[in-house]
Amino acid sequence: MTGFSFEKIALLGVGLIGASVARAAKKKGLCGEVVGYGRSRGNLMRAKEKGILDAFEETAAAACEGADLIVLSAPVGAFYGLVESAAASFRTGAVVTDTGSVKGELVYEMERLMPAGVSFIGGHPIAGSDRSGIDASSDDLFVSAKCIVTPTERSDKSALEKVMALWRAFGPEVVTMDPHRHDRIYASVSHLPHLIAYTLVNTAAELEPSSLAFSGRGFLDTTRIAASSHELWRDICLMNRENMLEAIRLFRRNLDELSGYLAASDADSLDREFLKARKLRGAIGQD
Amino acid sequence: MTGFSFEKIALLGVGLIGASVARAAKKKGLCGEVVGYGRSRGNLMRAKEKGILDAFEETAAAACEGADLIVLSAPVGAFYGLVESAAASFRTGAVVTDTGSVKGELVYEMERLMPAGVSFIGGHPIAGSDRSGIDASSDDLFVSAKCIVTPTERSDKSALEKVMALWRAFGPEVVTMDPHRHDRIYASVSHLPHLIAYTLVNTAAELEPSSLAFSGRGFLDTTRIAASSHELWRDICLMNRENMLEAIRLFRRNLDELSGYLAASDADSLDREFLKARKLRGAIGQD
Repeated sequence: MTGFSFEKIALLGVGLIGASVARAAKKKGLCGEVVGYGRSRGNLMRAKEKGILDAFEETAAAACEGADLIVLSAPVGAFYGLVESAAASFRTGAVVTDTGSVKGELVYEMERLMPAGVSFIGGHPIAGSDRSGIDASSDDLFVSAKCIVTPTERSDKSALEKVMALWRAFGPEVVTMDPHRHDRIYASVSHLPHLIAYTLVNTAAELEPSSLAFSGRGFLDTTRIAASSHELWRDICLMNRENMLEAIRLFRRNLDELSGYLAASDADSLDREFLKARKLRGAIGQD
Repeated sequence: MTGFSFEKIALLGVGLIGASVARAAKKKGLCGEVVGYGRSRGNLMRAKEKGILDAFEETAAAACEGADLIVLSAPVGAFYGLVESAAASFRTGAVVTDTGSVKGELVYEMERLMPAGVSFIGGHPIAGSDRSGIDASSDDLFVSAKCIVTPTERSDKSALEKVMALWRAFGPEVVTMDPHRHDRIYASVSHLPHLIAYTLVNTAAELEPSSLAFSGRGFLDTTRIAASSHELWRDICLMNRENMLEAIRLFRRNLDELSGYLAASDADSLDREFLKARKLRGAIGQD
């Protein structure tokens, strides 16, 4: 698919990811205009001043009016509300996509919420960060990222091609994946690590309130994502609840196992488990 | 204390930390010569070729002969064996220090192992990394680090001053701390995070073997220290066993609490705990 472009992109949610989508689309000449909607008028005004948005609207419905691409880049917890309030103004033939960290049932529910003639295709660029907001956005945020796209049997082929072509134009490798498989994978490599990082910070502070001041690079790296939005991650954990509960159960079983080895001063078993992790981690690189 | 220097530094263990001590001491003109001992003759030869060592010896005892400063920079699990094999050759008036991640009882045991007229002062530069080996070493590794020094009531004042002056000369802020308090603090901000990072990698791989290939920056950051030496961290965990078992118990209690909130879809409680961690983590910076 070459030479495609969108007349009007409606951006519902103008933060790090949404603003980076707008910037990348403008840089690649893939859109006529980008119109934004978000909770904070001050943020929308700043995004317009910076040239990230061409215009913004007071309601999601107004922003979506006439748009041929609608990108949900608000926190996932806000998706249903946004679509419910704006769906009546979606134009026939429009493609709706998102950038959220949860897929699974959400994707099927979004498909059900689409008006006739409007297609939903789920997307998830793997470019999250502890940073947030338009000041951290850039037109090359996605260049070396992956983007997961999660079509279903109901997905419109032409809409799917458009969404995949958009992401490919931004740089990333685009991988299609079943929505439920996405949620199992990201429970393990993203959602669980966030919950663990939050737990680690609270535990360290509780064990010894002064300890955080003595932390080094290891602690800073390991807990960096605990500086991420608590509201966003609360919603992601809740929306991927079953996978998260299973991931926590397995994590806990593995932790109990290590704790047992330590209590028994079983050096060989500790060594074996640490080495297993070291090899797995070494294989995916440092950056 | 100004104008001090050592005639001969014996370095027992020539890896990232030991080689960086040698380089920093040479850069600052704080030593006549640095003589190394380590397990790998090939590594010692390379360290000499690179000018990190002036010479190396076949035994720890030979390396320590005539040294006025002996630095234990091998993995902590090797300290007792090194001192037992070399103590007879420690010169009267020599200062012995270390760079290990565990203090506590180890410090008192090292004091007991010192021959008459030889002082031990425990040290711990907070400059560890998932990297290791002399190629990662540098003369400014410690510049913006902290260094914890753990004197006891038995510590010789002049030896303590020399060790503190050495670290101050390398750049870091030097903090003195009770050896047992050190181990409680570093169980929480270093040793537990390592064990958790190893657990996280093994759990993710077990939940979904393909998942690691889909990980993003959050997972890479959170698990970076799982690429650290499994033998080193096995020994650190075992040597700080009681604090580690307590840290794991509290971590597990906090994890069970979050798991309960998630199972009950208790958004407010999840939000409260995530926000608490976010504020604590935000207060210690990103780098």
